[in-house]
Amino acid sequence: MTDINKQYGIVLCGLGRMGKIHLKNIMGNRKLRLEYIIETDLEKANKTVTENGLNNTKVVDFVNAKQAITDDSVQGVIICTPTHTHEDLVLMTLHAGKHTLCEKPLATNLKKAAECYKLAEKQNVILLCAFNRRFDPQLRELYCRKSELGLVQSIKICSRDSPRPPIEFLRISAHCHDPEIQALDDHDSVFVVMKFPSGILAHIDVSRHCLFGYDQTVQLYGSKGNLISGNPRKSGLISDGGNVNDDIFYSFTDRYEKAYIQELVHFVELMENPNAECCIKPKDTLQASFLSQAAEDSWKEKRTIDVNKHRNLILGELAEHHLFK
Amino acid sequence: MTDINKQYGIVLCGLGRMGKIHLKNIMGNRKLRLEYIIETDLEKANKTVTENGLNNTKVVDFVNAKQAITDDSVQGVIICTPTHTHEDLVLMTLHAGKHTLCEKPLATNLKKAAECYKLAEKQNVILLCAFNRRFDPQLRELYCRKSELGLVQSIKICSRDSPRPPIEFLRISAHCHDPEIQALDDHDSVFVVMKFPSGILAHIDVSRHCLFGYDQTVQLYGSKGNLISGNPRKSGLISDGGNVNDDIFYSFTDRYEKAYIQELVHFVELMENPNAECCIKPKDTLQASFLSQAAEDSWKEKRTIDVNKHRNLILGELAEHHLFK
Amino acid sequence: MTDINKQYGIVLCGLGRMGKIHLKNIMGNRKLRLEYIIETDLEKANKTVTENGLNNTKVVDFVNAKQAITDDSVQGVIICTPTHTHEDLVLMTLHAGKHTLCEKPLATNLKKAAECYKLAEKQNVILLCAFNRRFDPQLRELYCRKSELGLVQSIKICSRDSPRPPIEFLRISAHCHDPEIQALDDHDSVFVVMKFPSGILAHIDVSRHCLFGYDQTVQLYGSKGNLISGNPRKSGLISDGGNVNDDIFYSFTDRYEKAYIQELVHFVELMENPNAECCIKPKDTLQASFLSQAAEDSWKEKRTIDVNKHRNLILGELAEHHLFK
Amino acid sequence: MTDINKQYGIVLCGLGRMGKIHLKNIMGNRKLRLEYIIETDLEKANKTVTENGLNNTKVVDFVNAKQAITDDSVQGVIICTPTHTHEDLVLMTLHAGKHTLCEKPLATNLKKAAECYKLAEKQNVILLCAFNRRFDPQLRELYCRKSELGLVQSIKICSRDSPRPPIEFLRISAHCHDPEIQALDDHDSVFVVMKFPSGILAHIDVSRHCLFGYDQTVQLYGSKGNLISGNPRKSGLISDGGNVNDDIFYSFTDRYEKAYIQELVHFVELMENPNAECCIKPKDTLQASFLSQAAEDSWKEKRTIDVNKHRNLILGELAEHHLFK
Repeated sequence: MTDINKQYGIVLCGLGRMGKIHLKNIMGNRKLRLEYIIETDLEKANKTVTENGLNNTKVVDFVNAKQAITDDSVQGVIICTPTHTHEDLVLMTLHAGKHTLCEKPLATNLKKAAECYKLAEKQNVILLCAFNRRFDPQLRELYCRKSELGLVQSIKICSRDSPRPPIEFLRISAHCHDPEIQALDDHDSVFVVMKFPSGILAHIDVSRHCLFGYDQTVQLYGSKGNLISGNPRKSGLISDGGNVNDDIFYSFTDRYEKAYIQELVHFVELMENPNAECCIKPKDTLQASFLSQAAEDSWKEKRTIDVNKHRNLILGELAEHHLFK
Repeated sequence: MTDINKQYGIVLCGLGRMGKIHLKNIMGNRKLRLEYIIETDLEKANKTVTENGLNNTKVVDFVNAKQAITDDSVQGVIICTPTHTHEDLVLMTLHAGKHTLCEKPLATNLKKAAECYKLAEKQNVILLCAFNRRFDPQLRELYCRKSELGLVQSIKICSRDSPRPPIEFLRISAHCHDPEIQALDDHDSVFVVMKFPSGILAHIDVSRHCLFGYDQTVQLYGSKGNLISGNPRKSGLISDGGNVNDDIFYSFTDRYEKAYIQELVHFVELMENPNAECCIKPKDTLQASFLSQAAEDSWKEKRTIDVNKHRNLILGELAEHHLFK
Repeated sequence: MTDINKQYGIVLCGLGRMGKIHLKNIMGNRKLRLEYIIETDLEKANKTVTENGLNNTKVVDFVNAKQAITDDSVQGVIICTPTHTHEDLVLMTLHAGKHTLCEKPLATNLKKAAECYKLAEKQNVILLCAFNRRFDPQLRELYCRKSELGLVQSIKICSRDSPRPPIEFLRISAHCHDPEIQALDDHDSVFVVMKFPSGILAHIDVSRHCLFGYDQTVQLYGSKGNLISGNPRKSGLISDGGNVNDDIFYSFTDRYEKAYIQELVHFVELMENPNAECCIKPKDTLQASFLSQAAEDSWKEKRTIDVNKHRNLILGELAEHHLFK
Repeated sequence: MTDINKQYGIVLCGLGRMGKIHLKNIMGNRKLRLEYIIETDLEKANKTVTENGLNNTKVVDFVNAKQAITDDSVQGVIICTPTHTHEDLVLMTLHAGKHTLCEKPLATNLKKAAECYKLAEKQNVILLCAFNRRFDPQLRELYCRKSELGLVQSIKICSRDSPRPPIEFLRISAHCHDPEIQALDDHDSVFVVMKFPSGILAHIDVSRHCLFGYDQTVQLYGSKGNLISGNPRKSGLISDGGNVNDDIFYSFTDRYEKAYIQELVHFVELMENPNAECCIKPKDTLQASFLSQAAEDSWKEKRTIDVNKHRNLILGELAEHHLFK
C-alpha cells in the first residue's frame, strides 16, 4: 500500500460553481496538496485561500497559468473554467506532462476532443473527463445490480434541471451550442427515443426546469423484473404521518455531492497507479456527443437517424483509431 | 482559520469492531496523524499498519500504553477497548493532560464516571463520551425541526439490534451488567414507558434481535403535526415496480457510519478550539444511566419510579456539583 | 345458494353520524329493504327518505319504536342511537325475536351487556356488536398473514383520532365514562403497555386529536420478521416528484368505509344462515371492556394490574357462563 | 330522486373473462335485474345461474339472441363476446331500441364503428363503449387535480400487461389486428412519442408482459409541479421494517375492479336519465383508434406522422359529421 502520507500537488483552474465543489473535495482529501489556484478574480481567490487556512497555496491569474502548471511541485491539474477555454488548458497541461481532470466537454469540437485523447496517450498521462454521474454510488449500484433483471429490455431516464440555469450559462453551455436553438423559446423540454442494436428501447426526458427539485431517475425493465434509481431525499425524515417525505435535492451540487468526491478519489487512484483502468474511456465521452448530435438531427429532419453513420461522418479517419473503437 | 496543514497526533487504543471504525475515520481526516496503535494482538495491529500504508504509526501493547500516551507527539487519545478497561485508560490520559474520546460507558460505576469528568475539568482537557447517535445527521435534523411540531406531546423510539451480538459481548456489555438479568432468557425485548414533568409521554421499544436489519426509528407527535426519523436505506434503488425498497442497514456500523465521522470531526474541532462547547455534556451521559437504572427497578418492583430520587440516591454529594446539574 | 331476489326487512334506529353510514350501506345492499327509520327528528328523517327515493320506507319516532320493531315485515334491527339508549332498544328487539346489530357498547354496564347476550342466545337470534375494525380488509389481511412472522413477540398499536370529537360526544361516549377523568385536561393522550401470558409485549398509543388525519396503525414483530398495517391513503396520487403522498383519511367514516360495508354484509350472512359463526363473540366485546378498566386502574394505582382478576371481580357468577369463557 | 326499488332488465352477452366481471357487478347493483344470459356454452351458463341464486334469469344461446334482446322485460344489453362479433350484436340491440354497453372495440373497422354511433343517435338510445380506465377513481382524481399543475407540459404513461395474454387472445384482440405484426416476435414492447398542438410532449411505454404485476402509471409534469398516478397496492401492509410493500395488482381484473363497477353505475345513470351526458363520447373512442394507426405507420415509415391527416383519410365524409368533431 502506498504511504498514507504521500501527497500530490494540484493546480485548480477556475473558482466558479464547479471550482468551489472541487476545492472543498481537494481540502477533504489528505492525499492532495493544493499548490495553485488559477483564477481571473484574484480578490475572490485570495479571500478563499485565507478563509480556508490554505496557507501554502499560491494564487495566480491566467497570464501566469503556464508557470503554475509546469511547476515541479505539481502532478495534477483540475480544469473547471468556462467551456470555451477547456481545450487550450487541456493541451497546455498535457504538453507539460501533467495528469488532467477536466469538466465536460473537453473541447467545443468532437475532432479536437479526440486529438486531446491522442496527446494524453502519447504523453502517458491521465486525461479524465468529469462525467460525474458515473461515480454516483446509487447509479453504480444500479449498474452492478442490473444482472438481477435478466435481459434488459427498456430504459427510461428522467433528467430535469433545478434550478433553471441562468441565461448566461445556457448561452455558453456545452448543452446548447447551436445558435438557432438558442433563439427558440420551446427547447426547455426534449423527449428522446432510441433503439439499440440489442433491441433495448430507451426514452430520455430532459427538461431545463423542474420546480420541486433536481429530478433525476433511471428505470430499467428486464426479462426478470425492474429496477429504479429514484430521487434520493435530503433526509429520511417523514412528516404528517407519512404524508410528506423530506424534499429531494434542489440541485446537482447536492444530488451528486458524493459523486464529485468519488470522481476525485478516482483521479487520485489513477495518479497513484497510472496502470489502473480509467473508468471514463475516450469512446464514452465521444459517444455521448454523437448521440446528442443525432437526436438534434432527428428532430430537424423529422425522421429516425442511424447513430453510427453520424459517428463515422464526424470523426473521419479518427474513427479507426484504437482509442475510439 | 487554522492552517489546513496543521495536524494532531493521535493514540488509538483497541482495534476491535469500534477500533476499526475509528481507524478508518482517522485515516480519512487530514487533520489527524496516527502516532500509536495500542493493541494486545500485535500481529493484527502490525498487519493493519502495513496494509494501510501507515508508515509512521507505531504499534505497542498495553504494557507500554503509558509511554505512548505521554509522548509529546500526542495530543489526543481514542479509547475503544473492552468496557472494564475504560476507566483506567481514561484516568491515565487525563492525568497525562491529553484530550480524550472514549466509547461508552466511561466507567462501570456512575460515581467513577462523575470523577472522570471532574478530573477532565481540573486538567482543562476534553473528555468526550462517544454518544454516536447525537452526531447522526438525520437525528440532528429531527432535533432541529422539532419546533415545527409546536408543543411536543409524545415520543416513540424503536431500537432493535441487528445482528444479535455474540453472547460474550452481552456478558461484558454496558447494556446488560446485571447478572440476574443475564441468566434469564426473555430479556431480549423490553418496553419502557416514561412521563416527563412537561407531560410528554415516551415509549421505547428495545430488542436484541431484529431479523430484517438494524431497526432504529424515532417518532415525535406535537400539537401541530408529527415527524418521523425512519430507517434510512442502503440506496434509493427500488425493485419490482415499487414493491421492494432497498434494504435498511444491517448493523450500527453502516447505519451510523456518518455519525462516527462527525463524532471525530467534533473531537478535532474541540482540540482546535478548546473553548468551543462540547455537545455531549457530563449530565447527558449520567442521565442516560439513571434512566436505565430506574427502568430496571420499575420492572423488578412492578410500579412506577421517580427518576430524580434515583439520581440523588446514586450520586450523593456529587449531585450538587455544577457539572452534573 | 339463496335466491338473489330474497330480501330482509330492516329497521334503522337513529340517523346520526353512524346512522347515515348504515343508511348508505343498506341502500347499496340488494338483500335489504329498509322498512322503518326510527328517529326523534322527524323532519330530517322524512327529508332523507324523499331525497333517496326510499318510497316504501316509513318514518316513526321513538314513541312508536315497539310497533315498528315488532312489525312482521321486519327481520333485523340496526341500533345506532346515543350510547345510553342502546340497552333498552337491544332488549326490546331481542324480546321481539329480531336479529340485532348494535353500535358499541351494548350497555353502559358490563353485567348488563352480558345479560343481553344471554337473552339473544335464549331467543335464538343474532346479536352483533359493531366492532367495525374486525371487518377492515387491511386488518383482516394482517391477521391472515401473521403466520409469516413466526412467533409474534410484540405489538404496537397507534390509534389517534381525527377530528377531535365534540365535547358533547366525549361526555357521553363509551370511551370516557368516568367523571373524574372528564374533569382533567390531560387525558387526551394515553400510553398503555401490556404483557400477555405468552410473553407478547403490547403498546397502545391512544390520542383524542391528530392534526394530519385519522392515524391508525398496527405493527407486529415476530421471530421471522415484521408486518405493519399502515395508514391507507385517499388515493395513490403522488405529487412533487414523490415528496408528497396523498393524504391519509381524515376520519373513521372514510378510513373504515369498507369495514362498515363488510360488517353489514356479515349481518346479512348471519340472517341468511343463522347457524353460521358470528365473528364477534360475546367474550370479545367483554374482554375489551376488562382491558380498558384494568388500564384505568393501573394508572390510578401506579402499579401493574392482573386483568383476569378484574374480569372475575366484575362478572361474578357470569364469568362461569359458557358464553363468556 | 328515482324510486330506489325501480329496476332495469338486462341481457348479458358472453360469460368469458369480461362477462364474469360484469355479472358480479350486475348482481351487486340493486337497480339491475338480470333477465337473460346469452352464451354458447349453455352448461357453464346454467351452472353460473344456479350457483348465484339467479332464480329468475333465463339462459339462451346465440341462435336465440334476438328473441332475448327484443324481449319487453329488457331495457339494456351488455356485450362482452369475442371482438369480431361486437358489430353485429351492437347493430341488433340498437335496432331493437335497447341501451347498449359494449366492450372495446365497437367494430373491427373505424367506419363501421362510426356508423354504430350514428344509428344509436337515430334510435335515441345509449351506446357506451367500455373505456374502463375513464372510470378508475384514481385516474379521475388525477384528471380533477391537474389544474394544480398550471400548464401541463409533459405526460408519461406506462402500461405494461400482466399476465401475458394467451396467444389465442392476441390473435383476435383489437390490440393486434395486423397479420404482419403478429408474425414478428419483438412487438411485445412499444415506445410511442407524441407532440400535441399545445406543445405537450407525451411518451407511452406499452408492453405485453410485466413480471411483477400489472404496471400502470401516469405522470404529469406542469409549470407548477407534477402529479403521478402510481400503482395501487393490494393492501397497505408493509413488511420487513418498510423494505417490502404489498404487491401491486396482478392483472386488470383487480386493478380496475372499481372502474368496472363505476362504468356500470354510469350505464344505469344514463338509463335513469337519458338526457345525462355520456362521459365516453364517440370522438373519444375513434380518436384512440386514429392514434394507434398513426403510431403504427410512423414505425413502418420511420418518420413523424400527422394524426389529423390520418383521421380525415380514414373517415372520409364522416369526418364532417357532428358526432365526430
